Amino acid sequence: MEKIPYKTYLDEAEMPKAWYNIRADMKNKPAPLLNPATHQPMTAEELSPVFCDELIQQELDNDTPYFPIPEEILDFYKMYRPSPLVRAYFLEKKLGTPAKIYYKFEGNNTSGSHKLNSAIAQAYYAKKQGLKGVTTETGAGQWGTALSMACSYFGLDCKVYMVKVSYEQKPFRREVMRTYGASVTPSPSDTTNIGRKMLAEFPGTGGSLGCAISEAVEVAVGSEGYRYVLGSVLNQVLLHQSVIGLETKIALDKLGEKADIIIGCAGGGSNLGGLISPFMGEKLRGEADYRIIAVEPASCPSLTRGKYAYDFCDTGMVCPLAKMYTLGSSFIPSPNHAGGLRYHGMSSILSQLYDDGLMEATSVVQTNVFEAAEMFARVEGILPAPESSHAIRVAIDEALKCKETGEEKTIVFGLTGTGYFDMVAYEKYHDGEMSDYIPTDADLEKSLSRLPQID
Amino acid sequence: MEKIPYKTYLDEAEMPKAWYNIRADMKNKPAPLLNPATHQPMTAEELSPVFCDELIQQELDNDTPYFPIPEEILDFYKMYRPSPLVRAYFLEKKLGTPAKIYYKFEGNNTSGSHKLNSAIAQAYYAKKQGLKGVTTETGAGQWGTALSMACSYFGLDCKVYMVKVSYEQKPFRREVMRTYGASVTPSPSDTTNIGRKMLAEFPGTGGSLGCAISEAVEVAVGSEGYRYVLGSVLNQVLLHQSVIGLETKIALDKLGEKADIIIGCAGGGSNLGGLISPFMGEKLRGEADYRIIAVEPASCPSLTRGKYAYDFCDTGMVCPLAKMYTLGSSFIPSPNHAGGLRYHGMSSILSQLYDDGLMEATSVVQTNVFEAAEMFARVEGILPAPESSHAIRVAIDEALKCKETGEEKTIVFGLTGTGYFDMVAYEKYHDGEMSDYIPTDADLEKSLSRLPQID
Repeated sequence: MEKIPYKTYLDEAEMPKAWYNIRADMKNKPAPLLNPATHQPMTAEELSPVFCDELIQQELDNDTPYFPIPEEILDFYKMYRPSPLVRAYFLEKKLGTPAKIYYKFEGNNTSGSHKLNSAIAQAYYAKKQGLKGVTTETGAGQWGTALSMACSYFGLDCKVYMVKVSYEQKPFRREVMRTYGASVTPSPSDTTNIGRKMLAEFPGTGGSLGCAISEAVEVAVGSEGYRYVLGSVLNQVLLHQSVIGLETKIALDKLGEKADIIIGCAGGGSNLGGLISPFMGEKLRGEADYRIIAVEPASCPSLTRGKYAYDFCDTGMVCPLAKMYTLGSSFIPSPNHAGGLRYHGMSSILSQLYDDGLMEATSVVQTNVFEAAEMFARVEGILPAPESSHAIRVAIDEALKCKETGEEKTIVFGLTGTGYFDMVAYEKYHDGEMSDYIPTDADLEKSLSRLPQID
Repeated sequence: MEKIPYKTYLDEAEMPKAWYNIRADMKNKPAPLLNPATHQPMTAEELSPVFCDELIQQELDNDTPYFPIPEEILDFYKMYRPSPLVRAYFLEKKLGTPAKIYYKFEGNNTSGSHKLNSAIAQAYYAKKQGLKGVTTETGAGQWGTALSMACSYFGLDCKVYMVKVSYEQKPFRREVMRTYGASVTPSPSDTTNIGRKMLAEFPGTGGSLGCAISEAVEVAVGSEGYRYVLGSVLNQVLLHQSVIGLETKIALDKLGEKADIIIGCAGGGSNLGGLISPFMGEKLRGEADYRIIAVEPASCPSLTRGKYAYDFCDTGMVCPLAKMYTLGSSFIPSPNHAGGLRYHGMSSILSQLYDDGLMEATSVVQTNVFEAAEMFARVEGILPAPESSHAIRVAIDEALKCKETGEEKTIVFGLTGTGYFDMVAYEKYHDGEMSDYIPTDADLEKSLSRLPQID
């Protein structure tokens, strides 16, 4: 038998030409977005002041299994795709496990993560619609960076509202966005009504993701030729991110490998949803079975400790309601938490799949995550993002279980990105200043008590 | 004719199995290192307290054309090699040039540059010799990061002396090194005689590369089981870096392409020397002809404005003398200069080739470099290191000349690394605070007047 190469790259001809829409194979479809005023499903018309038309179609389509990827996007994908599927020989050796470990590495691009897969798609449809530009918010900065790159490519204006505390603490992310021509505004700002209101009420505030979303939406809706775009949670984002899973599946098939366990970190669900799509599709169609594990931080455990209910997508409560596993839109994870997995809710698609018992979820504490990150960096060479390291942690744990049982399972995990802009978190870990805050039941009860009442 | 793919990766089986020693094909060999006391060529014995034995052999061998790459190093190379040879379709389109532009991208690894190619080799030979660890200095931090990764892989101790001002201004680089288990000491430090002397004489000094070298050498020579390692300039480093050029040549041959112009940035010469090796070899053997262009910063123009003479390799004057194009070891480029191309001299091999008229050299000012960097980032997606961007600048200029003349030349340049840890420089550029300092003739006369007198 030929030895499996360390890295597998698809040829250009082997790359996926269409995104896969997992909803087409779901028996229980994800619940629709609701109008926050009427509690009725949002129509395409109602969504059109906020989102691009073609993206709305993708958002609402629960039936079409494949969406061809436009040529322009395929061209852009060539810059940084295919991403490699790596056989983690060095990690296997370090662990002494009989398991075979693979990871799909999405960090080999300047945005440093998988976010670019959807950013370029959303920018493309905005351009096609003849828009001038788009607005968005960013917290840790990966999404803002990805969108800046995508907008630069299509000559679109890009207005990023960056949570003020991140704007100040992550000047390098900001400069990457500026390099790609984006305007980056610390939020709250005096450029919007909601921003001015926040500044008046809470002078000196460091801002929040919820407020940044509200500012970005306000600017999009109020500006001629602008729409708002979002990097996770939405159905359309999972559709675009399916390219990760499709490439992974093609590469595994090519190698003659069958995954037993598929692991991904989960914040809003964009990476996990994309990675598992084609595998979950086989599972839904009864063609194959896989253990699929979502890994979330113990500090923000929406699947493992949240409630499956309709909730606001933003703390400002201006966006549609989504049914999802949620901790409540007023939940704010400890600022101590380093990763970008800080969203209070989970993609509606993944929430439904989880509720149907089609995937598992587990949570891990922060220092255990960084322990795994450092081990991984040392043996596999890549310094991982804190978010991705949640998946590494569980992949290592599963591989160690195989060591005990002697099972030669094939474990595949998503390595969503690199940690080059997260060295402050690594520094805290090295200096022993990182803590493992876990919200109390009382914390969660408090934020969950404020869920909207939907009949 | 089949369209050339955007990225070309070699298969594992196609990867080079031996490094190429350009000296074997040079009629005029590079001048030997001299003992600073006797002015006689350094012997292997004299070098052995400082360098690893097998690296000394590589350093002194002007005859053996190929050195097999040890299995252990080939294994490590698999983690991040082959690096892609990219056809810069997007850049060509942006420029509207008939030229075909290729770049060899060495930044897809956590050290962020090509430095890892030699770091892993030097760590390997240190391990093989049974050493406990190695010492080195780092300025911008790319070399220190690469060496930390390599030492971590082989379980070697790694002591990095980091120029104090960089240590303080680049805490993220420092944290990457710590992630790989290296000890990072700001230089000057109280851990060495020379450091204590400097601190007593110049309290509050930000340090210099020269002082950091002296500290690293002092610790290596004075510690049982340690040696000193260096990331550029030396013959052994160019030997290891030949892997860049060899892969490039194999990929071009596979694509049926023949380079007309080969361009690389040049500080100490490690990247340029590696990239051009096999092409220069053909040129030396009369098998093919290429225009080869070294690009250096106008702020530190050793080839274009320096003198070909014996000089000290370090400002502390503890290392052997090398014959090279030099600005004088007392030359210090403007602190304003952002790139890592700040070394006062140039590799002896490249100096000899340049003196023999086998390659060209040109210099570029800083803001022009960042203009090219930003354009490249926007169209090709990769945010380049300031060093690499010197080569981008000249590649663009050559492509624009082709646009004028209509010539369809094939241009190949080395993209040595990414700029993720250089965003302070980008910020200065965006804010219009970057200047184009060029040393005056009087500046150069002053530092060149202090060259050692060798008969």
